Amino acid sequence: MNRFESYLTEHQAEFVDALRHFLTFPSVSSLPEHKGDMLETARWLADQLRQAGLETVELLSTKGNPVVYGEWPAEADKPTVLIYGHYDVQPVDPLDQWRHPPFAPYVSDDRIYARGASDDKGNLLAPVIAAAAMLKTRGRLPLTVKFLFEGEEEIGSPNLDSFIRRNRDRLACDLILSADGGQWAEDQPGLTIGLRGICGCQIDIQGAGSDLHSGHYGGAVPNPIRALAQILAALHQADGRVALDGFYDDVREIDAREKALMARLPFEAARFKTALGLNDLCGEAGFTPLEQIGLRPTLEFNGIWGGFSGAGLKTVIPAEAHAKITCRLVPDQDPRRVIAQLQQHVERHAPRGVSIGWRYIEKGARAYRVPLDHPGNRAAADVLTAIYAKPPVYMWEGGSIPVTSIFLDQLNVYTIGFSFGLDDEQYHAPNEFFRLSSFKTAQIAYGRMLDRLAAGEAA
Amino acid sequence: MNRFESYLTEHQAEFVDALRHFLTFPSVSSLPEHKGDMLETARWLADQLRQAGLETVELLSTKGNPVVYGEWPAEADKPTVLIYGHYDVQPVDPLDQWRHPPFAPYVSDDRIYARGASDDKGNLLAPVIAAAAMLKTRGRLPLTVKFLFEGEEEIGSPNLDSFIRRNRDRLACDLILSADGGQWAEDQPGLTIGLRGICGCQIDIQGAGSDLHSGHYGGAVPNPIRALAQILAALHQADGRVALDGFYDDVREIDAREKALMARLPFEAARFKTALGLNDLCGEAGFTPLEQIGLRPTLEFNGIWGGFSGAGLKTVIPAEAHAKITCRLVPDQDPRRVIAQLQQHVERHAPRGVSIGWRYIEKGARAYRVPLDHPGNRAAADVLTAIYAKPPVYMWEGGSIPVTSIFLDQLNVYTIGFSFGLDDEQYHAPNEFFRLSSFKTAQIAYGRMLDRLAAGEAA
Repeated sequence: MNRFESYLTEHQAEFVDALRHFLTFPSVSSLPEHKGDMLETARWLADQLRQAGLETVELLSTKGNPVVYGEWPAEADKPTVLIYGHYDVQPVDPLDQWRHPPFAPYVSDDRIYARGASDDKGNLLAPVIAAAAMLKTRGRLPLTVKFLFEGEEEIGSPNLDSFIRRNRDRLACDLILSADGGQWAEDQPGLTIGLRGICGCQIDIQGAGSDLHSGHYGGAVPNPIRALAQILAALHQADGRVALDGFYDDVREIDAREKALMARLPFEAARFKTALGLNDLCGEAGFTPLEQIGLRPTLEFNGIWGGFSGAGLKTVIPAEAHAKITCRLVPDQDPRRVIAQLQQHVERHAPRGVSIGWRYIEKGARAYRVPLDHPGNRAAADVLTAIYAKPPVYMWEGGSIPVTSIFLDQLNVYTIGFSFGLDDEQYHAPNEFFRLSSFKTAQIAYGRMLDRLAAGEAA
Repeated sequence: MNRFESYLTEHQAEFVDALRHFLTFPSVSSLPEHKGDMLETARWLADQLRQAGLETVELLSTKGNPVVYGEWPAEADKPTVLIYGHYDVQPVDPLDQWRHPPFAPYVSDDRIYARGASDDKGNLLAPVIAAAAMLKTRGRLPLTVKFLFEGEEEIGSPNLDSFIRRNRDRLACDLILSADGGQWAEDQPGLTIGLRGICGCQIDIQGAGSDLHSGHYGGAVPNPIRALAQILAALHQADGRVALDGFYDDVREIDAREKALMARLPFEAARFKTALGLNDLCGEAGFTPLEQIGLRPTLEFNGIWGGFSGAGLKTVIPAEAHAKITCRLVPDQDPRRVIAQLQQHVERHAPRGVSIGWRYIEKGARAYRVPLDHPGNRAAADVLTAIYAKPPVYMWEGGSIPVTSIFLDQLNVYTIGFSFGLDDEQYHAPNEFFRLSSFKTAQIAYGRMLDRLAAGEAA
């Protein structure tokens, strides 16, 4: 066994403690009240990089939360790898559904429960620990490593594009590894070769100037909830397709190779359904659930609110009603074009009597594809095959990691998903957790991946 | 001037103080956490009746909040009048739209601002003060007066029916005056001869067992918000009519006399619209706004919620979505039948993949009509004509006072609306207020009405 791997085993309890500490920071990027927590989280993370033994560690400012940057310069003939992750997390509501407080990490039965455990703090910390173990046991890393940890992934990385543009030279590299994402299953490695893009907005419906008594006015005045329901209901067709004019115009058809690779993925719809507690699936007609998630676009409602939601009854016609919407996009959809289609569609279906306001809450990102036979994918496949004793499957993720497209545009470098989350880990939901076994696997895999990339194609 | 009227003028500042105190109790009947406040409010109100000089004052228990009961027994040959009001109030949200805290009464420019100021604490307290003034100045009331103040009107008086049934003898009377309701305008008295009925429920949509990441699942799994929007959007037709099968079957057509009386009401649609801050009205086609509110049924959404409603973005497919619905009914609709129609309709339009739960949050009440030439209406018309120097108009209220139908069923006695709220007073909305001038007018009117009823038809 590699010496750094023994070191990882010997010191694992310390590393779990570090993760536990990391998870106590309520680094919710979407909520302004956590602004200060974001900075504290970034500082703590920078300290971890310093303690790992990196020579250059900095907080780099953006218009939003800082980027945590760390660098180990190897000899000039070695390649450079950049490792990406994000230290921000999703909001925690509905808080009452958490069995333990979301920022008081709780360990039980190989799992650590907390907001951000899987997405992305556990995954992010693994390569830092791998580097620390290598530096402790060898005094150096086998190639140049640059760490870039952002604090705005969960709000669509609004400032990363300009940050990367400003720091092109510093961030120059041969390959990017993303510590955000996951494996196919606990015993089945996977490599992500596609991600969906995203765009999103909030619709604000305004009726009367204030809430009205539903008895004294009901029947004569517009009801913003009714208007909103009409607008939202008109956004899908009965067959599950998105009803926006032109929405599918730029959607690249699924090709035979994609279809064949996807069909090979071990997937049982019945099991998937049961695991989610659903009595039925109901995606776009003519596509399998995996195709619906990985290769087809979707329009989803993320939140709706208006009027009275307390216990019992309040006979009110609310002045306002609101909804949050995001679309997940596939090649070659343009997020700005889709938002424009959405706005046009809503304006065409807007009922009388209410006014409609818009907020763009997601800057938007195009979908991402990386060639299956890219050298980074080949290296990752080798490492994963050795660890899992079986070769990886190729996956298209339904989620969005906007930075992948940004890296490709700005640095002209592909990003390889190299992370160890699993689908049941309740990311973006109450009781998020990360497997401590995955946490350790990730550390070993990252160490071996650095060695493999340093050795080059011949390894 | 009647002596009790001078007394009212001399002591008005004390009575305003009493109202102010009354308004500090957060007697929100729909919220379980205010259970204790309900009892305190009832006790304070009972004390007011005692201080007014009533001989019998009791808190009478129900399955819910107590009834405050007070009685003044006059000579046997005098008629008996029962005065009804409610000491509970609507919830206060959205709290951030109140300019002053809802239970810290604020007086400015002849108006007292607080939750319940107009609906119904100001109106309720006026007859208590009128009785107090008469008892101070004359030592007696001119007829037998029974006060019945309930604490559950804002949740549909769920326990009043059985309470009245159990207390039929005690509550026996010749006429009921309701201190809940209002006048047409500040300078135009009105008598309410119709009220709409009500029924209501909450729809609970359940999708997956927990919130899901909208990227990793979006496209393959049902979205409860989408299901709810589809269900709600199917409840109305494009022409504004309610789409439930059979909803209009039992609706009594508007007759020519009603239409003519209503057409006489001073009403300007443009002004109505502007006052509410609306750019358009949008009720059922073929009816005027007054007809839509007073004589036609409506189905209104009172609240909707599900998923993420904080600032920014949370890319979640929520596990649940909810809506609160109430219908306002006209003769001869049956609230239970309408709820059954609603449930059938929703089940027929329910999308695949979600399950639907129901909660009946409003027991329901039929619409109410009192003959225009009822002796109680004639007496009220005389009193109002003298006070306002013009005769009252006849009104159909869009709201519901379920107790009116209960009194008619259980006691076989009609209820005359005798109250002084005005439509702009923001009842059921933020910044509710009551005019102090109306408060005093109500006191005088109640005193005169008691004299008028004691004198009988000949007066």
